[in-house]
This record gives sequence, C-alpha cells and structure tokens, in this order.
Amino acid sequence: LRVSIIGGSGYSGTELLRILSARTDVTIAQIIARTSAGAAVADLYPEFVGVISKRYEAIEQFEPDRADVVFVALPPGEAMELIPDYIGNGIRIIDLGGDFRLKSTQLYEEYYGRPHTHPELLQKSVYGLPEIYRESISSASIVANPGCYPTSVILPLYPLLREGVIETRDIVINSLSGVSGAGRKASVEYSFSEVNENVRAYRVTGHQHVPEIASVLNERCDREISFSFVPHLIPITRGIYTTIHATLSATIDDSAIARLYNAYYGNEPFVRTVGMVPQIKNVVNTNYCDIYATVQKATGHIIVISVIDNLLKGAAGQAVQNMNLLFSKPETYGLA
Amino acid sequence: LRVSIIGGSGYSGTELLRILSARTDVTIAQIIARTSAGAAVADLYPEFVGVISKRYEAIEQFEPDRADVVFVALPPGEAMELIPDYIGNGIRIIDLGGDFRLKSTQLYEEYYGRPHTHPELLQKSVYGLPEIYRESISSASIVANPGCYPTSVILPLYPLLREGVIETRDIVINSLSGVSGAGRKASVEYSFSEVNENVRAYRVTGHQHVPEIASVLNERCDREISFSFVPHLIPITRGIYTTIHATLSATIDDSAIARLYNAYYGNEPFVRTVGMVPQIKNVVNTNYCDIYATVQKATGHIIVISVIDNLLKGAAGQAVQNMNLLFSKPETYGLA
Amino acid sequence: LRVSIIGGSGYSGTELLRILSARTDVTIAQIIARTSAGAAVADLYPEFVGVISKRYEAIEQFEPDRADVVFVALPPGEAMELIPDYIGNGIRIIDLGGDFRLKSTQLYEEYYGRPHTHPELLQKSVYGLPEIYRESISSASIVANPGCYPTSVILPLYPLLREGVIETRDIVINSLSGVSGAGRKASVEYSFSEVNENVRAYRVTGHQHVPEIASVLNERCDREISFSFVPHLIPITRGIYTTIHATLSATIDDSAIARLYNAYYGNEPFVRTVGMVPQIKNVVNTNYCDIYATVQKATGHIIVISVIDNLLKGAAGQAVQNMNLLFSKPETYGLA
Amino acid sequence: LRVSIIGGSGYSGTELLRILSARTDVTIAQIIARTSAGAAVADLYPEFVGVISKRYEAIEQFEPDRADVVFVALPPGEAMELIPDYIGNGIRIIDLGGDFRLKSTQLYEEYYGRPHTHPELLQKSVYGLPEIYRESISSASIVANPGCYPTSVILPLYPLLREGVIETRDIVINSLSGVSGAGRKASVEYSFSEVNENVRAYRVTGHQHVPEIASVLNERCDREISFSFVPHLIPITRGIYTTIHATLSATIDDSAIARLYNAYYGNEPFVRTVGMVPQIKNVVNTNYCDIYATVQKATGHIIVISVIDNLLKGAAGQAVQNMNLLFSKPETYGLA
Repeated sequence: LRVSIIGGSGYSGTELLRILSARTDVTIAQIIARTSAGAAVADLYPEFVGVISKRYEAIEQFEPDRADVVFVALPPGEAMELIPDYIGNGIRIIDLGGDFRLKSTQLYEEYYGRPHTHPELLQKSVYGLPEIYRESISSASIVANPGCYPTSVILPLYPLLREGVIETRDIVINSLSGVSGAGRKASVEYSFSEVNENVRAYRVTGHQHVPEIASVLNERCDREISFSFVPHLIPITRGIYTTIHATLSATIDDSAIARLYNAYYGNEPFVRTVGMVPQIKNVVNTNYCDIYATVQKATGHIIVISVIDNLLKGAAGQAVQNMNLLFSKPETYGLA
Repeated sequence: LRVSIIGGSGYSGTELLRILSARTDVTIAQIIARTSAGAAVADLYPEFVGVISKRYEAIEQFEPDRADVVFVALPPGEAMELIPDYIGNGIRIIDLGGDFRLKSTQLYEEYYGRPHTHPELLQKSVYGLPEIYRESISSASIVANPGCYPTSVILPLYPLLREGVIETRDIVINSLSGVSGAGRKASVEYSFSEVNENVRAYRVTGHQHVPEIASVLNERCDREISFSFVPHLIPITRGIYTTIHATLSATIDDSAIARLYNAYYGNEPFVRTVGMVPQIKNVVNTNYCDIYATVQKATGHIIVISVIDNLLKGAAGQAVQNMNLLFSKPETYGLA
Repeated sequence: LRVSIIGGSGYSGTELLRILSARTDVTIAQIIARTSAGAAVADLYPEFVGVISKRYEAIEQFEPDRADVVFVALPPGEAMELIPDYIGNGIRIIDLGGDFRLKSTQLYEEYYGRPHTHPELLQKSVYGLPEIYRESISSASIVANPGCYPTSVILPLYPLLREGVIETRDIVINSLSGVSGAGRKASVEYSFSEVNENVRAYRVTGHQHVPEIASVLNERCDREISFSFVPHLIPITRGIYTTIHATLSATIDDSAIARLYNAYYGNEPFVRTVGMVPQIKNVVNTNYCDIYATVQKATGHIIVISVIDNLLKGAAGQAVQNMNLLFSKPETYGLA
Repeated sequence: LRVSIIGGSGYSGTELLRILSARTDVTIAQIIARTSAGAAVADLYPEFVGVISKRYEAIEQFEPDRADVVFVALPPGEAMELIPDYIGNGIRIIDLGGDFRLKSTQLYEEYYGRPHTHPELLQKSVYGLPEIYRESISSASIVANPGCYPTSVILPLYPLLREGVIETRDIVINSLSGVSGAGRKASVEYSFSEVNENVRAYRVTGHQHVPEIASVLNERCDREISFSFVPHLIPITRGIYTTIHATLSATIDDSAIARLYNAYYGNEPFVRTVGMVPQIKNVVNTNYCDIYATVQKATGHIIVISVIDNLLKGAAGQAVQNMNLLFSKPETYGLA
C-alpha cells in the first residue's frame, strides 16, 4: 500500500507518520509540507531520528501516481482546491480537514467563511466515522475524516437519539480540548505562558463543528436536534473530554442504558462503554473512544461523558481506521 | 483586630495568612493546625521565611479570648463540634467549611453523610456571600463562607433567576476546578502523575454543593429551580471555570443582559461583568468573580460563564471580605 | 514465554503490562500487587478495559513454577527478601529495584539505610545495562535493572571515560526528573498542587544512585571517578533530562566526539547520538536514550546531554530489553 | 512620581503595571507599545478590567517631559536607539533589556550580534543590582536592570568569590527557566504543545548572559572567573531555578557558609539565605531571591541553589526596587 501525505508536518500528519512508519504493509511515498519543504522529517521531529529518513517535499513535487491513498491535512479551504486535481485516477483521498464534511454548501459558507468551490465532490465524499458509515466508507473515493469534537459527540449521542431515549431539544454539550487540537502554529494565544494555568471557552455561539454534528445526527437518527455546544481550551496537550446533558424522554435506568450502548458498540473495536467516570488518560495514545452514561434522577437528565485522543480517534487514528476499511485490511491494524 | 485560624495549615488557611499578615490593622493571635502543631509556618510554607515567625499550635492550646474573630477551615463535621464551645463569648466565627451552609439538617445528612449535631446553630449562621447577604452578614455570629463552586454559580445565576429571564428547569452547570480545591492532602488521585495531562468529572450525580446552590437561589429568587451540576478536575492549581446553559424565558439580547447584570453588580467591588469570554488567569490571585453572558440565538439558550480563584473569592478572599463586613472595615481592605 | 510480575500495580509494573500484553510470544501468568490484590487491573488502570482482564493477586498466591521469568518491582529492601525463595528452580529474575545493583554490601547499607540480607546473591546478579553488560546478561539468573538516573548518566559518560577524553574529577551532573519516577504514591510532596509550577532539587548530597553510577563506571573504565550529582523534580510526568559538565583532558572537537560515540553506540538499537540539543519529548514513550555532546571552547569543558523516558529505558523498557536478551529474542522485540 | 513605560505590553511591562498601579505615590503617564498601540490595556490583559483604564500609545506619541522616570522594556538593539533622544533632560531611565549591561562594546557585538551604536552611554549606565551596586544606582541616569539569569547567579556567587571560598575555575551553572522569560511572542517553539511535558537546554555554548555574569563578578571580586552556564526551558510559566557547583578552595562547613551569606545579605530585604533546599514556589509572585548552600563532602564541592521569580526579582520587581533607590523611596515600597 503506497501512501502519501499532504500537509505532513502538522500534528495530525506526524501522528500519521508515527502509525504508518511502523507498518510493514505500507510504504510512505511522499510527505508534502509547504513551509518545511526540503527539511528532513527528523529535523522537525527528532523523535524520528533513525526511524524516518525522508524529507518533506513541496506541493509542486507531488506525484499522484506514486500513491494508492493520499491523506490530506490542510487548513480549511486548501483541500478543496487541491483534491479535484488528483481524484479520478483511482487514488483514494482521506481528508482530515473540514472541506468535505458538510453536504450543504450553504452551511459550509456560513461556518467556514468562504464559498465551497467544488460542490460536485461533496456527493462523492463519505463521512469517515466507521461506527456509523462503515459500509459506505469502504467504497468511497473521498473520505471526509470527522472533526475531533464531532467524533467525541456523535458516538455517544447516536444510540440515544436513534432509540428515542432523549429529547431532541435542549441538549447541552461541553467539551474540553487539549492544545494540539489547534495545530502546530506560532501564535501568542496558544503559547505556553498564555495557556498554562488557564482555561478559556471559545466560539461560544458558533463553532464550525456544530453543523457537522447536527448533519450527521439529523440524517442518521431521522430527527431534527437542537443543542448548544461550548468548546473550552485547557492546559493539556492531547485529549478531548466531552460532557453531555440531555433530558430523558423515556424511563430508563443505568443498566438499560448500558445494554443500549452495548447493542450498538459491543462489537466495535474502538468504542468502549465503561462503568466508571472516564479520564482522558485512559485513551491518550490510543484510538479508543470511551463512553460513560448515567441517569441523574433528581433532574431527569442523563449525563453522558466521552473521551478520545484528539490526534488519534479524533484525527490520524481514525484516518488510518478508514484507510484499513478502504483497502480491506483488518480495521484495527496498526492501531491496537 | 485579633484573629485566630483553626485549620491553618491547609491551602485556604495559608491564603488567609498571606492576606492577613499584610494588614497593619490585624494581629494574628493563634494558628491552630492539628497535624502540624509545633512546626513553624515557614517550615511548611517557606515562602513565609522572614515574613511569619509563628508556629502552628494544637487545638488544645486554643485560647478563644485571644481573638475577636476565628476563621475555621476544617474537614466536614469537625467545625460543628468545635464551634459551639467558642460561640457566645462575643467571638465571631467565619467557617470556611460546609457545616453551617445548609439550613436543612436533612439535606446536610444526605449530602455530608452524617447527622448535624448542632442544628440550633444553623439559625444563627448567615451565608457569607456579601453580594446577596451583605446586610445580614454584618451582624452575624457565625458566617458560613460559601463553597467555591456555589460562589461561581450563584453570582451569575442570581440576577437571571430573580428577574425571571431564564427558565427554572433544565439549567446545566459544568464547572472545571483546579486541584487546590481538593485541599492539601496525601492521595494518589491528586498526585501530579495522575492529574497532569488528564481530566475527570466526579460526583456526577450528587455533589454536596448542589443543595447549597439550590437553597440560596430558591430562597432569594422565590423559585424552585432544577439543574444538573457536573464538576471536573483539570490540571491547574488554582481557579474555577463555570459554564452555565439555560433556556431563555424572555426575549432579551446581549446588551439587555449586560444592563441587567450591571443593575445588580455595577457597584460591587468584586464582581465584574465582562465583554469577552473570561479566562481563569484574569482572576487568579484576585478576589474577583468575572461574569460573561451571551445569547445563543440558534437554541434560545443563554450561555453564562464565570471565573474565580477558588482559594480567594472561593474561600479565603471571600472570608476576609466577610470579616471586613463584620467589623465595619472597608469591604475591599486587604483584597484589592 | 511465561511471565509474572511482582509489584505490578505501580507505574513501572504497568508499563511492563503495556509492553508485554501486546506481544504474541508472551503469556502473563500472574500479576502480584499487595495493596491492590483482588482488584482488576482495568479497575486501577481503565486504559486496560478490554485489553487486560486479569486481576492482581496477593503475594501469598504467587506460584513460581507458572513463570519462566519474574519481573520484580518493589520498594527497596523487599526484593532481597523475596527473591531467594524463588531463585534456583531455573526461574530468571529481573529486578527493577535497587537491591541487587550494588556489589558492595557496605555501600548498600550506607545508601539504602539497611543491611543487605542476601549478599551471596549479589555475585549472581548482573547489572542490566545491555549496552555495557550484554554478554553477561544473557546468562544471568538475576538481572539488576539499572536505575533511571544511572541509565541516563552511565551511557553518555562511559565512552568518554573509557577513552580518557575527560578528567575523572570535577564531573558535574544535573538531572531533571518527571514525577512518575517517584512511583505511584499518596503523598503531599508529589501532589499536583505542590509540584505544578514548581521545581526542587532533592538529596543534594547523597542520592542512592551515586554509588551505582560510580561502581559501574569505575569498574568498566578502570578509573576512580569523582562527581557531584544533583537530581531535580520538575513538573512533567515522564522523562529524565541529564546535563553533564566535564573537563576535557584531550584536544578534541565536536566531530571527533561524534565519531567516538558512534564507535561505541553506532550499532546500538536504543542509543542515538544526535546533532541537536535533545528534548525529552523526542524519547517519551520510547526505549531510546538520546545523547548530545559539544565542546565549550571558552572553558575547555564538554557539555553532554542525555534524555530518556524514565519508565521505559529507565525502567520497564530496559527490563524487557533484558528479558529479550535472557531468552535470545531479538533485542528490540516489543520495544520499537 | 510620574512614570512612563516603553514596551509596556510584554510580560515585564505588564508586571510593572501591576506593581505601579497599586501605588498611591505613582502616576502612570504613558504606556507605549508599538503593536498594541490604540488598544486598551484591559483588552490585552483582562485582569486589569476596572483597574487600569489607559490605552497603549505609539512611540510617536511619547512625550518625555510627562515622566520623571521611564522604564524601557524592548528587544535587544531598540533601547540603545531610543534612549539617547530622551536622556539629558533630567529623565531617569531604567532599561530592562540588555543594551546597557555590558561595558564592553566588543562583548556586546559578539553576544548580541550587532555593534553598539551609543558606547558613550555605557559609561553613564549603572548595573541595577541593588545588593551590589546600591550606592551608584541612586545617582544613575541610566540603570541597566540585570538579566533574570544573572540575578539568580551573581547574588549567590558574589560572597563566595569575593571571600575566596571557591576556586575561580570550573564553576558549573545550570539554570531552569519558566517560559515567560522568553517574552510574549508568537512562536512554535514556545507553544504549549511543544513546551508541555518537555525540557530542552538552549544556547549551550554561548548565552548572552555569560559575559554579563562574568563582567560583574570579575569587576566586583577582582578575579577572573571561568564557568560554564547551561540554561534550560522547562514547563512552568514563572521562575528560575539555578544550581551551581563549585570547588571549595578553603575548608569550610555549612554553618560557616551560612554566616558568610548572612554577613553579606543579612540586612538585605530581598535576599533570604534559607536552610532547606529551595523551591520556585517559595518566591513566585515575590521579589525575593532565596539562596541555599551546602558542602558536598565526598567531592569537595559546594552546591549553591538560588530561586527567583524571573518577572519580579529577575525583571520588573528589581526595576521598581531600582526606581525606589533613584527617588529615595523605601526600597521595599510596593514590593513587600
């Protein structure tokens, strides 16, 4: 399996390198990274000294026919310009960015602040959440790898909404994210001195992951849901902690909820329903999503908590899971 | 003003020492600390070398008549055994623990896991949140200093509930707390290796601060509210970040909300209504509570965020604010 | 290969579980942990939910003949009492503690504060630093796995001393350690609130790793060295950063030093000589020791910096490397 | 006392604002900050909401005659261009940067990479370490406020060298610095994801603070010293931890060393000689330098450890201490 990565010098791209370089069935063809072109991977990331000897290359040097699958990890708006050139010669694309996640060009424009330039490709893309879209992924030409927050939100909400256990309105989602979710960038607001010993919410009334979550759940659960979502930046490097409050619409207890989750995810290799309140450290450096749910009797609410590693199940790990599906490899290969 | 501290070697007691030792109008009479009795304060906290020369004393050495006011910072259940012995000779008590915060002995027993042994004192105690109970505090013999979470929750919710701007049901409160909130204790679960790069929610369905919040808001707003409250432990030492979601019951916009908060808190020295999403670092090492509120049009929710330093406005700072009220000192004295 | 672990619930024991549970050629027979006996491994470490289903057992339940090799990770003094009972029936022991690292019972007593109760076993034990004692390790019945600091100090100093490039006196070693090096323990001094945003040196004039470092280097380099060693606790979970200053005794430049290291370690799978100042993150979660050396012309000093993951190359990783040697497995198996 | 700050939006400038805004005897005239000109201080640093209402101004708006003293906190090379324009009309300058710390233009050029454009001012400037240059500071027109590392190194070494207690050669200095020492800047290398859970040494063979330390100690101790200095970046926001190893040249024990330090610093308000190994947290948010020294008998070395808050005794606090000296205010005013 010949693999290239476009946007290979960021944190997600580097996690891809870490996973893929350990596989004997994968050859890394090219690693494209605009600003780092020419540098050795091991110069930017010295953990790879003696492990990866390749250099980053410029986008102009990209040769599509050297790869069977191309991972694209670019800032919003860049993937949709690049991908059309390569699609069609049989290359499969796994896009880790947001350009192909929303089917609605109107929502894309509203939340990403630019018109979508290739709406025709949106119909060719499949949302790469294997636990929900496994069948469609295996034959997709473009896999739109889910956002990190949506992964941590959709997986726990999907069974509850689909089974009608919770009200579709007044769902409240609070997420806490590690700083690597913002990418590898020079900026005062993500500098250590600003983030350490600090917390801040952001995009309180309009994060671009809101329509992504809504679209998937509305479509798959055949309901129109309404929720508020507040993401917070906290001083950890990796991990997402999502706490969801919803109003129960049925009389149900903790063990029935556990059975419900088990019915959906009991055979899933990367979703674990757990009996104790989760901690981020339980999933860091893994591709797991751990889910915990409990009924709060006093309020008639259900509290659902999920944790993922934002760079793995929230990005590169899920992308490799999708690659495994695309090429009929065991789904856990390289990820266990 | 002669001051003694019982339970002076924990984090709240030490903050009290920091604040009080800088005041020229205060004399620290005794610092009582069971396990550290005999040790110099500066041995346990070397920051006080050359600043505080006193030693911790055993409770047996406590002499009530040496103090005009006694701060009590003890684990649940201990204050209510001690305080009755000292009350009555004109000493004023400021209790930083939970023993005198709930008027209902039944709720106390349910949430603190032991019967209340001195219910007669509950009627003598006043809840020490100056912004709401200022009048009663000044003449109280026992001030029940609020919990850190309740301070961060009651202040932002109080004006909204009292004015009927939000529904009384389905209020959702997520709080993130620094580790110092758990006190200075030897325990694996609060060790650096367990907390760092980690997050965990706890007491998801029954934290003892739930009835404290409910009692105050129900009483003062003359409503019966229902809310879920989920506290989280995050890897910072100091600070609380509280994010509240509520359903608007009136048509109101951000500027009207700002006016509403201004009407309640515009003259308060330690509550700031801010126009940007708050960060914990804005209030660390201060006695401020910063509040931010915004309407989320898509859901009809209001998002309210508050931040405090859990050891100051959430404990020792508020306790000194109460002491200032008790003795007719300027309320900000020693805290600005 | 049947493996048991005694002291399996600490951080080193848990890293062993992580490494060994991923190997298809290893069966974990028993995991002994005194205080956690009876609990499921996945209850203490929920990361193992769905991965390890075993429970910790009490030492009384230990059955030596169920294992070919036993890893022992116990506090000082405990291993030397246990091991004699099991040695001799062909079981190989890899001891991660300090009881068998010093050949001198006098030094043991001086630095560990108790007499050594089984000096006869000291002669049977081999110091488990493969880069230096590989030959002897493969046939040892007891492997004394090196301390974390000594691993980070001996590897960089060994070639320099053996080749006579540096003076044997006035070597200065400063090490910075993550908190996991202190083990999983309930203690105020390792609590998050005490460690975060803080640094402290400790055992400034007599750490027990001093004689360990001296013994190995004196023996293998046939010299008597004198050095000061100051360990520091810093607010990270994993990793050791060691900075060594020594006086050059020969005229040598950076490239000659690089050649020297390459001659010693060029074929070593887990030692990398690097051309840039190392960072701890380059080796975290790996079994590498990265070494950097440069001549400081103005002083005639050489500055040597090494980094390891204290739980891997400094403990469990090296222990597995030793196990591979004991059983003629590829040395990197399970560690790459 | 009318004060202006040039370069007021960085961390040192902001600490100056924090200290000075609390003083009743000081009026802040202007806060100059190039890139933030026009913004309110409280927008950049919301901790100042309700405390400081001023806005940053552009350098073009600076009016020298509105201030009695000007603090300059600018990147290297900028202060020496600005200051000549303002000097001479009686304004006193306290420069927190490096432009006036070295008397030798040759060393300046070597370590700062540019020629010094105003060597004539070097003779007018006094090195602002009050414990050593108090007399000269009070009448200086330019005070060159010391670097953070030099403060932490010179204070502990000065008495030892001056009294001839240690050898002048083979002194080894390792310093650990918090990230705020690098200033408030957008850069990948100081981003949270790169710094957290990491350590790295830097400028191992030529930090610009080396000649600063050497010049002061050589001049004041009338000796020519040789030392290696290795600074390390560690994941804390504030504080410097300096560990010094030197060879004793006299027979001396811990108590004699304590007496020696006491003779030099016993009356100093901001230097504390302590009996326990220091921790950074003992001095964070204070202007103290804590010093600890102990003899390591086995090696004939002395280990000296010092801690400061890099933004206070290492920058803004010391600058205010100097301002107090310049204007005959009590030296501790605003700093205790």
